[in-house]
Amino acid sequence: MDDLPGRIADRLEALRARPPLVHNLTNYVAMNFTANALLALGASPVMAHAPEEVEEMAGLADALILNLGTLSTPWIESMFRAANAADAHGIPVILDPVGAGATRFRTDTAQRMLSALRLTVVRGNASEILAVAGQPSRARGVDATDDAESARAAARELARQHGLVVALTGAVDFVTDGTRAATIANGHPLMARVTGTGCVATALTGAFCAVEPDAFFAAGAALVVWGIAGELAAQAHDAPGSFQVALLDALFRIDRTTLRERARLSLIST
Amino acid sequence: MDDLPGRIADRLEALRARPPLVHNLTNYVAMNFTANALLALGASPVMAHAPEEVEEMAGLADALILNLGTLSTPWIESMFRAANAADAHGIPVILDPVGAGATRFRTDTAQRMLSALRLTVVRGNASEILAVAGQPSRARGVDATDDAESARAAARELARQHGLVVALTGAVDFVTDGTRAATIANGHPLMARVTGTGCVATALTGAFCAVEPDAFFAAGAALVVWGIAGELAAQAHDAPGSFQVALLDALFRIDRTTLRERARLSLIST
Amino acid sequence: MDDLPGRIADRLEALRARPPLVHNLTNYVAMNFTANALLALGASPVMAHAPEEVEEMAGLADALILNLGTLSTPWIESMFRAANAADAHGIPVILDPVGAGATRFRTDTAQRMLSALRLTVVRGNASEILAVAGQPSRARGVDATDDAESARAAARELARQHGLVVALTGAVDFVTDGTRAATIANGHPLMARVTGTGCVATALTGAFCAVEPDAFFAAGAALVVWGIAGELAAQAHDAPGSFQVALLDALFRIDRTTLRERARLSLIST
Repeated sequence: MDDLPGRIADRLEALRARPPLVHNLTNYVAMNFTANALLALGASPVMAHAPEEVEEMAGLADALILNLGTLSTPWIESMFRAANAADAHGIPVILDPVGAGATRFRTDTAQRMLSALRLTVVRGNASEILAVAGQPSRARGVDATDDAESARAAARELARQHGLVVALTGAVDFVTDGTRAATIANGHPLMARVTGTGCVATALTGAFCAVEPDAFFAAGAALVVWGIAGELAAQAHDAPGSFQVALLDALFRIDRTTLRERARLSLIST
Repeated sequence: MDDLPGRIADRLEALRARPPLVHNLTNYVAMNFTANALLALGASPVMAHAPEEVEEMAGLADALILNLGTLSTPWIESMFRAANAADAHGIPVILDPVGAGATRFRTDTAQRMLSALRLTVVRGNASEILAVAGQPSRARGVDATDDAESARAAARELARQHGLVVALTGAVDFVTDGTRAATIANGHPLMARVTGTGCVATALTGAFCAVEPDAFFAAGAALVVWGIAGELAAQAHDAPGSFQVALLDALFRIDRTTLRERARLSLIST
Repeated sequence: MDDLPGRIADRLEALRARPPLVHNLTNYVAMNFTANALLALGASPVMAHAPEEVEEMAGLADALILNLGTLSTPWIESMFRAANAADAHGIPVILDPVGAGATRFRTDTAQRMLSALRLTVVRGNASEILAVAGQPSRARGVDATDDAESARAAARELARQHGLVVALTGAVDFVTDGTRAATIANGHPLMARVTGTGCVATALTGAFCAVEPDAFFAAGAALVVWGIAGELAAQAHDAPGSFQVALLDALFRIDRTTLRERARLSLIST
């Protein structure tokens, strides 16, 4: 694992050569941005939530995203169906526990999924990861109020206990499978001023998991790519409206050269 | 109340220093734009509608938005729950009766909310305000077809009768609490060519109500800020796609200087 | 039918002079983009799906759009109600069978609608049209994988059998009413990298059907206008984020001159 940026570029090129189908059960707020981000990257998004078709759609897909923003009971049932079909079909399942820690409904749902489903990656901010790990969280709404550093221990424990990868995003992102750990120091503060940037990080993680069997590396790759997109967008835009548009343009343009110049992924000891 | 622009700037700075959490039960069309507008302004948006969590989320929030676009019976039930929780929690509740006057379902729902809930502000266009007030309305779809002037009397009466603030938006906006009244002559015609600009006006009203106890002033401040955002966006953009992006940028950039230069809020006799 | 671009311009001007109300039951992903595209063109969009109001709303509208993306059983029931009300009211009904061929649920729903409802236009990509016609389709998710050419025979047969217009979109679009046929060679490959461009094509078809009684011509006009918008957007933008914004600007700006310069609509023998 010497040339990490080169290896990310390999995966990105593989993805663009054969676009994986990413099946999303995600929130109403971020659906459009998520679909556009997947398309801009080079993946193929599909959104489907009806109990009549989620299993069939998951069976066609290369990755499944479960996102708990704008959660409701009928959607939770569809998420369980889709996740079980994805598992049977052998594709990665990525959970984004949006707002866990804010309400019991979201925390409980995330924890139920963690217990009952075979998940590949959980991607959340510090408040969400702490809440999912059953620790005190100061979540308020869907924005993180806990320090990313403080949640790393919880992330490691969660990864070990459930045999999955945890991607903890913040000013510096942290990814762990319980054994290995890495930090990603890409990104830009304006990303916090655009709704759904966390949801997109999760969807891109799914896209990379579809083309890279090592979910620890796939999650790191997705966060590097998304973080660099933020840096590129911020080069010419200093306000959130035009910055959001530029994020999509940057995802479309990012390539081996940009990855070599900008990737700040570091393996650290756990 | 001499230096109105300065007072609006004070509230805007307070909001940015301690971002209020604005809980939205709003329509599918405008959810993304609404969340991005609140973030661009400096507030913290959350969307949550499940009966299992709306009360808990409203109990964490600093303002609650009820928006009747893409209305359905389950959402109405959640809106009532959330509004009662918001009331118990002592936070402002803002109603946007999107499409009232167009269908009986929307008119009836808005009127039931007005009777049964303690609302802080109702924000609508002329057709919607006339319909909510039980007067003949020529609403067709969700765009106003009645003259804003003609609805002012209805707005005043509605405000007096229910002890709330009515924000009637149009070419010139009109805000009244039944006793006081003001006009806001900011804004730009292109705003009518972008979906959800009314919904955003309502959400910004909630954000200002969270930091300003006088809802009459808060509603006026929100409309001044949004109207100025429209003017700033129109300086460099004359078509709705790029104009919409620039609206978010303008919300992010608007400050005391811009407010002093551009605010056109006038107290008028009722 | 000599001066086709001029005739399209006539319809566009008529539409802008008296904006038709287009009632959409469409998917969560494309709702915002669809509403903004209709507004940018000059039409008036409304989204409403509750069984309590769909019939009344369809009765106010000038065209009805049924879009099967993010389909669910309650929405299907509302779509049937709305379509029957639209039929009674004498307005055009446009079906977009998003994802037909990908899951049985979508294919069956589209076919049930085709049998039970009076539809004016069906707009889909090659995979969707083949699936709706009961032929083998290689749909995967919501993106077409079948060749547009190969679906033309199915489109003709579908049009003849059901007495409607089929608009088959791809690199070159094909429109037929079973007797007449036309190709539209406008558009740009970047449109496939923006989510909802197909859904917008369908909604614009509804807007043109509202002002043009010949649905064959209306569907062709909508695809010419949307394709030219893509060409204009691509003149200054080569990545999907800024391209999407420019699509809306182009819809707003397109006029008789642009239509005369760029329209590539050709009547062909069936």
